[in-house]
Amino acid sequence: MSLFRLIPDKHDVLQDQNAPEEKNTFRHWLYVTIFQSSTPAGKTFDIGLFILILANIILLILESVESIAIAYDKIFNILDYFFMLVFSVEYLLRLYCVREAKRYAKSFYGVVDLLAILPSYLEFVLPNWHMLMIIRSFRLLRVFRIFRMVRFLDESRYMMFALIRSFNKIMVFLFFIVLLTVFLGSVMYVLEYDHNPGFHSIPQSIYWAIVTITTVGYGDVAPVTAIGKIIASFIMILGYAIIAVPTGIMSASLVSQYRDMDNDDRVCSKCQNRNHAADARFCKKCGAELSKPES
Amino acid sequence: MSLFRLIPDKHDVLQDQNAPEEKNTFRHWLYVTIFQSSTPAGKTFDIGLFILILANIILLILESVESIAIAYDKIFNILDYFFMLVFSVEYLLRLYCVREAKRYAKSFYGVVDLLAILPSYLEFVLPNWHMLMIIRSFRLLRVFRIFRMVRFLDESRYMMFALIRSFNKIMVFLFFIVLLTVFLGSVMYVLEYDHNPGFHSIPQSIYWAIVTITTVGYGDVAPVTAIGKIIASFIMILGYAIIAVPTGIMSASLVSQYRDMDNDDRVCSKCQNRNHAADARFCKKCGAELSKPES
Amino acid sequence: MSLFRLIPDKHDVLQDQNAPEEKNTFRHWLYVTIFQSSTPAGKTFDIGLFILILANIILLILESVESIAIAYDKIFNILDYFFMLVFSVEYLLRLYCVREAKRYAKSFYGVVDLLAILPSYLEFVLPNWHMLMIIRSFRLLRVFRIFRMVRFLDESRYMMFALIRSFNKIMVFLFFIVLLTVFLGSVMYVLEYDHNPGFHSIPQSIYWAIVTITTVGYGDVAPVTAIGKIIASFIMILGYAIIAVPTGIMSASLVSQYRDMDNDDRVCSKCQNRNHAADARFCKKCGAELSKPES
Amino acid sequence: MSLFRLIPDKHDVLQDQNAPEEKNTFRHWLYVTIFQSSTPAGKTFDIGLFILILANIILLILESVESIAIAYDKIFNILDYFFMLVFSVEYLLRLYCVREAKRYAKSFYGVVDLLAILPSYLEFVLPNWHMLMIIRSFRLLRVFRIFRMVRFLDESRYMMFALIRSFNKIMVFLFFIVLLTVFLGSVMYVLEYDHNPGFHSIPQSIYWAIVTITTVGYGDVAPVTAIGKIIASFIMILGYAIIAVPTGIMSASLVSQYRDMDNDDRVCSKCQNRNHAADARFCKKCGAELSKPES
Repeated sequence: MSLFRLIPDKHDVLQDQNAPEEKNTFRHWLYVTIFQSSTPAGKTFDIGLFILILANIILLILESVESIAIAYDKIFNILDYFFMLVFSVEYLLRLYCVREAKRYAKSFYGVVDLLAILPSYLEFVLPNWHMLMIIRSFRLLRVFRIFRMVRFLDESRYMMFALIRSFNKIMVFLFFIVLLTVFLGSVMYVLEYDHNPGFHSIPQSIYWAIVTITTVGYGDVAPVTAIGKIIASFIMILGYAIIAVPTGIMSASLVSQYRDMDNDDRVCSKCQNRNHAADARFCKKCGAELSKPES
Repeated sequence: MSLFRLIPDKHDVLQDQNAPEEKNTFRHWLYVTIFQSSTPAGKTFDIGLFILILANIILLILESVESIAIAYDKIFNILDYFFMLVFSVEYLLRLYCVREAKRYAKSFYGVVDLLAILPSYLEFVLPNWHMLMIIRSFRLLRVFRIFRMVRFLDESRYMMFALIRSFNKIMVFLFFIVLLTVFLGSVMYVLEYDHNPGFHSIPQSIYWAIVTITTVGYGDVAPVTAIGKIIASFIMILGYAIIAVPTGIMSASLVSQYRDMDNDDRVCSKCQNRNHAADARFCKKCGAELSKPES
Repeated sequence: MSLFRLIPDKHDVLQDQNAPEEKNTFRHWLYVTIFQSSTPAGKTFDIGLFILILANIILLILESVESIAIAYDKIFNILDYFFMLVFSVEYLLRLYCVREAKRYAKSFYGVVDLLAILPSYLEFVLPNWHMLMIIRSFRLLRVFRIFRMVRFLDESRYMMFALIRSFNKIMVFLFFIVLLTVFLGSVMYVLEYDHNPGFHSIPQSIYWAIVTITTVGYGDVAPVTAIGKIIASFIMILGYAIIAVPTGIMSASLVSQYRDMDNDDRVCSKCQNRNHAADARFCKKCGAELSKPES
Repeated sequence: MSLFRLIPDKHDVLQDQNAPEEKNTFRHWLYVTIFQSSTPAGKTFDIGLFILILANIILLILESVESIAIAYDKIFNILDYFFMLVFSVEYLLRLYCVREAKRYAKSFYGVVDLLAILPSYLEFVLPNWHMLMIIRSFRLLRVFRIFRMVRFLDESRYMMFALIRSFNKIMVFLFFIVLLTVFLGSVMYVLEYDHNPGFHSIPQSIYWAIVTITTVGYGDVAPVTAIGKIIASFIMILGYAIIAVPTGIMSASLVSQYRDMDNDDRVCSKCQNRNHAADARFCKKCGAELSKPES
């Protein structure tokens, strides 16, 4: 679902329906600034928020390094409060300026926005709670909010269409890969488990098969028997060859998209010729003037 | 052979020939339900069987984890009996409802179906037999039965055609890769075997060459001599570059398939020829005028 | 050079020039049988030789495994003599039946054929010579002789053209990769060599950079400093992204080859329209009959 | 910026503006010889410089190998002085023969040329300085100078256009990958850090995620918990599938470039428009009749 929300046009339409009814008020100005990027203020807001999220993520990453966390304990504490405040205010402003606050709160980004500020408050209330560590990491969900801004990049919009178009085919391919690793992992388990502690169970063998077929190859588990190495070689060559499938699907999808963009569907009124280039003004067959291309 | 059976149309035709002669009987209804998916009952059966096979495979995977196997010994025993019963009944029903039971029993999926239920009975008769472990894994052949359902997915059908079309070319490529690894593995054996226990024989060196050229790179065997590292670098760069070959083949195959699909489906009224270009006004076979393309 | 020799058409032409002058003699029949595959005898010879070379290579591989070499010492000795004899006779016959024996002896495959039988004789003369091991491996050059037969496969012929067409571009790409690894390896050497014995010299660091950029990743050398890991991450992402370059080149090359095969250059004599499908008999624009396609 | 400088045409134009005003002088001859490659002297100079840079880089690489550095200490010293002299003279000649010496000195290659000779002098002045090691490596920047010559290769020029055309899209993709590894690395940190010293901080976990998603897979860090291995499997399959994205982008870009090259070079006699389709008879911009395409 999140994938489809990333397509800009559709998204913007949804947001427009969520714009407050009264125009030319502060609330409407806030909506346009926060949710859209058509105005200079909106662009500034987006860039500012992007920098803040990035700074916050870098802060969280650095806090996880023990030596740094101890050395700059106080600074981290202050910055934690600062970001807690900033993102809380931003969340409240978002709730205030949309027409249907509930609808925003329930939307994908609404939930992400909330989940990303909640841990800071929980830490405040329960400073020694054990689960805190895990909940804390929710704050990293802010990474997803950066994707929201990515939609304004024309390039990614283009890629998203191709990705979605190829999505089903690549899913079928991945389903096939998973089935294959289940089968090959089980075969390797039967062959190796007497000689190799690395293949102590089928899930472990499937993990190994995935590590091998994707050509990652950690080496923490590796076959030791002759027949195991032969099967492993087969899996490797298979993985090396079938990478061609998703790549081919994506290439074909993008090639046909480039072609669509290059041609339009205009028909010459004189000779019925088609297949004119998108920038053609005259028929390439008879020289008659073509209709203006629809933009 | 199994690959070709996966193409849906041909497969369905074969199955129709195997349908019982009398229509509108329970046996025919059973046939349609079990072997086809055109009726609601057939679809329900397929989905139910899919879930059962998946549950059975997950059960077998979990049973292989020692700690889980000991903890839930009784539940696993009961579930083993349950799946034994269900798949046996299903196999008998399949034998009953097809016109030629022998033909089904000898077909690829017929053999898989039988091999997947046999181990349960063998375990019953010979509880302490040593070979049991290996035979047990045959039950995992049920994974292949899932592929049978995959044929109903339009996406995979599309991919299968492209795969088959490129199959020969990719096979030639893989044959070339295998010859290359035999040669390069032998070269590395000569260079490394005095200094590196990892290259103790040519088969081991070929194994290493496959691990390297497919970019898997476990690291359980790695060159130690200077000249060995230079040759290894060469193999890596080679593997990195020639991945382009199967990928290019698949891309080109799929691109031309997309283009074919762009052609329209108009049939010549005179000679019944199909596959005209989208901008064709006359049949390319007999010269008769074609109908206007629908836009 | 060897690459170009693999193109069948050109190769056959060269060979025909090397055919003995007198036709319908035993020598000419021998030439056709050994060097060509157009006659049934020629095909039988090719398949027989293919099996012999394969058997010989498997023998050499097995001989390298110590435990097998000791157990079947006598059988290996007899088989070694057998293959020495067979390939010597074959080489002499080749020299006998071609018009210019010298020209064959100097050709790529002539040299391979000789180098592949020489070690057996050297072993005979100098049974305890130390260099023997390395010279022995020359016998594995017979692998290359298999390629000679590959040319009869239509599929490989197709691929060879695309490979040669893309060869220069991919070479430039690989040259770029090598320069990049030299630079990045040196940077890593400077950063890591004080903290990590794995980066003890620039050649070793370049080896590591190649292992990393090709996504092989043995793990025998891995960065330990923070800055080293950041640079390493950058190299990995770079390697992951630029694999797109050779793949794209090959795809584009094959796509345009598929397209060329789909279209011919015939021009309609009535309306001058081009771009007819290869199987078209009538112009798709005006319905006039087209000239027969040149085969 | 350096990337754009690599496009030959633009680059040559810039250089021509930098040619000295007076023609047919020694200074102009020097300019043409050093900066251009259109004359035989220019080509000889380029090839000679290429060999010198290559020899110097090999020397620097060998000097880093301790055993070699000690054995050939004197030869290395003499060769160091030789290269210092040669490249200094070359730099001075470049400064002399261009019209605006400052402009060259500030250009990308001007800075590279200077940075590559400076360390030799610094070593002369401060023989025991600690930072020398790092500054020394600047000499390897000469690698970049080789790229300058690469521009004369037609092949690379072709690739550069496609790279630049796809550059933005691939950057967006890499930005997406980095965000993904930040998120997945943090998730793995939370899951593994109690059980696995390899995941001791988020930066380390992100490093692991990059090693995994790019399919490098060193194995120096590997998950040990069951849930960690499941997430890791997911990351591997993801990395294996999304490699299709940059590959597809590059393929599509190159395919459309090949197609453009298939278009002919006819120029409309009325409006000077180019880029007409191969089967066009009339200019697509102004409708004027085009000349017949040369076959």
